Amino acid sequence: MGTVIFDISMSLDGFIAASGMTPDVGMGEGGEALHDWAFAGDERDREMLEQAGARLGAVIAGRRTYDNSIKWWDADGPTGPARIPLFVVSHGMPDHVPAGGVYTFVPDTRSALEAARATAGDKDVGIMGGADIARQYLHDGLVDEISIHLVPVLFGSGTPLFGDSWIEGHVRLEAPEVIATDAATHLRYRVVK
Amino acid sequence: MGTVIFDISMSLDGFIAASGMTPDVGMGEGGEALHDWAFAGDERDREMLEQAGARLGAVIAGRRTYDNSIKWWDADGPTGPARIPLFVVSHGMPDHVPAGGVYTFVPDTRSALEAARATAGDKDVGIMGGADIARQYLHDGLVDEISIHLVPVLFGSGTPLFGDSWIEGHVRLEAPEVIATDAATHLRYRVVK
Repeated sequence: MGTVIFDISMSLDGFIAASGMTPDVGMGEGGEALHDWAFAGDERDREMLEQAGARLGAVIAGRRTYDNSIKWWDADGPTGPARIPLFVVSHGMPDHVPAGGVYTFVPDTRSALEAARATAGDKDVGIMGGADIARQYLHDGLVDEISIHLVPVLFGSGTPLFGDSWIEGHVRLEAPEVIATDAATHLRYRVVK
Repeated sequence: MGTVIFDISMSLDGFIAASGMTPDVGMGEGGEALHDWAFAGDERDREMLEQAGARLGAVIAGRRTYDNSIKWWDADGPTGPARIPLFVVSHGMPDHVPAGGVYTFVPDTRSALEAARATAGDKDVGIMGGADIARQYLHDGLVDEISIHLVPVLFGSGTPLFGDSWIEGHVRLEAPEVIATDAATHLRYRVVK
């Protein structure tokens, strides 16, 4: 069975999107700075992205993430031409689902993980967020690895990944694999279970 | 003039102390895990600590930090035998100040920085927190470098370093110097002004 990995870009002060988020500005005002590293032209950033992508067999996202992103994703989903299946945690079907899309809608986080695992086989299952979905999986002890792309910026406000009192009790992590580039510090932690 | 550095240990989810903080348990329950790296016996952790200490000419702390720590600090202060002068931002004098101590009490963050700079000369001024003091200096654009010792643990709750809406507008940072050890990822950022 593959690894369940929560993978996200975060500002040093803990935000995964800037404030001022709208359907047109999905990452908030200036929030796209969090993803600059993926386009920065540093070979190590690109290699890391490719290697993570090659291991991925299925992805899970929340409904708000879907709604905010579908106009850019279109039928192929967040992984583009790789067309890795995306499982969206959603109480209902959205009005707009692109024909021939990679999307499956499932009612809760547990069934999303079950379906994603079945699809991924030996490959990894990626949890892309939003924050509430990721926290839910962490809370339930279902995340094997946390991959944080820590971006050298302070947003001051926005969408916090964790926030105050997001879980009871401490979660221990192993020392991360670290890849440091000019655009981001890539930190990959294994959750101690 | 030396560098003004805010230096602190933080959990991956942004806490600088765990919940359950009392005068007897200054870092909260299990919160001392944030400082384990300083005692972990890895030479790189120790070297980094020594080098930072050697550059330090004065330190600034808030009143609550003083109150919670004075019983351990005694006369020498947070730097122990190095006895680096500590400026405490405080509206009044505490009842208990050790004789022969390294402490000076100043009424606000600006005068604390002025006094600390005068004392430090060409050496660095360290801001050790609490979080509110550090945020104030960051807000006022007075911090040159941020040194985060990122510890592989999720606390879930406690004292957040930044919190939501702690500052207006984004603060850009340069790519950090990174020293990765088993006990912590040491990230030293220069603030872009």
